[in-house]
Amino acid sequence: MAEALKLGIAGVGTVGGGVLQLIDKHWDKFKARAGRSLEVCAVSARDRHKKRSADISTYKWFDDPVVLATSDDIDVYVELIGGEEGVAKDSIEAALKAGKHVVTANKALLAHHGMALARLADENDVALNFEAAVAGAIPAIKTIQESLIANDITRVYGIMNGTCNYILTQMQKEGRNFDEVLQEAQDAGYAEADPTFDIGGYDTAHKLALLTTMAFGVETSLESIYVEGIEKITLADIEAADELGYRIKLLGVGLQTDSGIEQRVHPTMVPKNTPIAGVDGVTNCITFDGDFIGELVLIGAGAGASPTASSVVSDILDIAKGIIPPTFAWRTEDLVPYKRAPMRAHEGGYYIRLSVYDRPGAFAAIAASMADVGISLESIVQRLPESTMPGLDTLPHDGGPVPVDMITHRTTEAAVRKALQAIEKEGNVEEAPQMIRIIKL
Amino acid sequence: MAEALKLGIAGVGTVGGGVLQLIDKHWDKFKARAGRSLEVCAVSARDRHKKRSADISTYKWFDDPVVLATSDDIDVYVELIGGEEGVAKDSIEAALKAGKHVVTANKALLAHHGMALARLADENDVALNFEAAVAGAIPAIKTIQESLIANDITRVYGIMNGTCNYILTQMQKEGRNFDEVLQEAQDAGYAEADPTFDIGGYDTAHKLALLTTMAFGVETSLESIYVEGIEKITLADIEAADELGYRIKLLGVGLQTDSGIEQRVHPTMVPKNTPIAGVDGVTNCITFDGDFIGELVLIGAGAGASPTASSVVSDILDIAKGIIPPTFAWRTEDLVPYKRAPMRAHEGGYYIRLSVYDRPGAFAAIAASMADVGISLESIVQRLPESTMPGLDTLPHDGGPVPVDMITHRTTEAAVRKALQAIEKEGNVEEAPQMIRIIKL
Repeated sequence: MAEALKLGIAGVGTVGGGVLQLIDKHWDKFKARAGRSLEVCAVSARDRHKKRSADISTYKWFDDPVVLATSDDIDVYVELIGGEEGVAKDSIEAALKAGKHVVTANKALLAHHGMALARLADENDVALNFEAAVAGAIPAIKTIQESLIANDITRVYGIMNGTCNYILTQMQKEGRNFDEVLQEAQDAGYAEADPTFDIGGYDTAHKLALLTTMAFGVETSLESIYVEGIEKITLADIEAADELGYRIKLLGVGLQTDSGIEQRVHPTMVPKNTPIAGVDGVTNCITFDGDFIGELVLIGAGAGASPTASSVVSDILDIAKGIIPPTFAWRTEDLVPYKRAPMRAHEGGYYIRLSVYDRPGAFAAIAASMADVGISLESIVQRLPESTMPGLDTLPHDGGPVPVDMITHRTTEAAVRKALQAIEKEGNVEEAPQMIRIIKL
Repeated sequence: MAEALKLGIAGVGTVGGGVLQLIDKHWDKFKARAGRSLEVCAVSARDRHKKRSADISTYKWFDDPVVLATSDDIDVYVELIGGEEGVAKDSIEAALKAGKHVVTANKALLAHHGMALARLADENDVALNFEAAVAGAIPAIKTIQESLIANDITRVYGIMNGTCNYILTQMQKEGRNFDEVLQEAQDAGYAEADPTFDIGGYDTAHKLALLTTMAFGVETSLESIYVEGIEKITLADIEAADELGYRIKLLGVGLQTDSGIEQRVHPTMVPKNTPIAGVDGVTNCITFDGDFIGELVLIGAGAGASPTASSVVSDILDIAKGIIPPTFAWRTEDLVPYKRAPMRAHEGGYYIRLSVYDRPGAFAAIAASMADVGISLESIVQRLPESTMPGLDTLPHDGGPVPVDMITHRTTEAAVRKALQAIEKEGNVEEAPQMIRIIKL
């Protein structure tokens, strides 16, 4: 049997503690399965004496993660500090340069500096593994690296943020509005005190950037991602989606098109009765379209100490087994430059909700604005306030706003934006139109 | 760069042809990704001169797969002949003994002889890879081998047969009966002329046997699987399930229990609005419950030339990259003997449909038979024929049979069987009771 694989762990919070517990619990199994035992040799954390779930007193202690990262005591540097700059970045760079394998769960760091770090890993022939960085327990990274290797992947998309999915699920199931559910999620610890990073779509964008790089073999381009959060989704949207046969999910979508790569994060209507529509609460979902396999959907825990620790340890065991893939599935010199498809060229169906003043000519003007840019409608639903409850041909004519839901046929983002600008300008709507993209599965 | 990996392919039907096309199409990519090129050196098939999608005239030809399997011309023997005995088995044994890696899609062979073959692979330090044998494009095998290695898996279950799922989906969506949809599936090529192997649940049992072995680290035990097919599922069951909030799927289930391992294949009610309920048509689904990750669901193409070829090639490329895992995730000497939990000890909820003669005392007798074995009911629905359309308190009393749907609380298989025997014996039901197990997700 090969020598033990020596680990240095930096950051012993919930995930780091989970990793230590996991290695302790399944140590015998890991030895049998990997043909090599794991040995935690050294740790580093902010506070040596903090009370922790795991006992760290038997490991060698390092005050400075950068010193740990280059220590002769370790073969693998496990970075669980977090943060896109600072000591996490410095220590990973130091480890790679010193020829240590690195395992990390740090999506922000990789989304911003992944290319440079992957180059360092290539140059030093070491692993830079990050299964835990994207969708927790879902093996999205390994699936691209290995299982889908025989495919050209044409699209990758999914639910990558548990906070957003929890909020949208609660709104739908309990008929409650956004602010109320967000508050509840904050109280329950599913949302941060400042929730912008999650609900604004930025966390999803980080993960999408990594998936796109690997799926399409292109350089990472976080700044090319169109990002729209869930802040503007109302209960009315959720209810309209339900009536029309959809659920609303915050999706990250990477797509190969003729004009380049689309990367977008935005609320999206997905048809009910599809697996992704059934992905509720904090659960995540990653889907791949490949030329030989068609569609592959992976659903599982997107966060949490145990699922994250599980992925970190699977990365460590890959190294123990000698599985050392290029960081982003391809060696960095084989990744091609990112070519951005303009968002305005995006094609698809759209849901549009207008609050239309009920007066002569209003609908005609709206219809004309749609027709002017070549948009045709698949369905249109005029939802009357329940209090009026008219017969089919007795519409109220008090001039007050009437909600109108429309689903367009396939059109372009540019056409929809132009039409909505025109409609708003004409003054027949009470408020800015709501627009939600629909995904074809 | 390492030397080319030399392949010998036995069986050049649809899957074999797909493998050749795939290697041809993505050859450059495979070389870049694996750091080693693939070279198809030799083939064997029943008929050398048959018209094929792939041109095989440039490869060295072998009349006998067993001779190909041991030839110095190859490093990897790819068996795509099929069949649980005969030349497929002989050639794989010969290849392993000759120190060749083997890739196969042959689930029947592995379910029957997997232990002996895995021992040969262990002894000769070679790979025996079979990702394509279980659920086509779904990376179920690799997920157990590598991604879930940090978990104790407590349950594995899923939809593993596309023919059955197609039939059940069509019955539900189109309100048609079993025979009609089976005939259509046969005409469309989704079902064999003799469909017993699929609809009887035996194909699912083969796949389940392999998953159970790997997930729980136990010796394969095909003969321990309780198998019940979909032949007895009627449109009435499908409709009742729908009303009660369920879909009916043929599941294979492997479960760790206190009394041993349960392996069962049977029609199962799964709650609507869960991802697995949305898995329609020929699509497959494999789900794992792990102690650290919770639930992981994989959904994708379960069969077909391209998805199967994709998995075969991913297995070949793993070998090219030097990823040589033990066949069933554990070395054979580490697999523990299979301990079977008796099916009668199975616990869960049950759906029961009775056709009850509407006469005094009938319901009381049925209720008593349930109570005698400790079964309590979660819900009971008496569905009246539409033609009678009674008011709530005007039940028809012509004595004719009335359909009654019941959902039990958690109970045992033994109790349910006992109660149903008693009910049938009492003579208050027109026909044998229908019973469908419910899965808790």
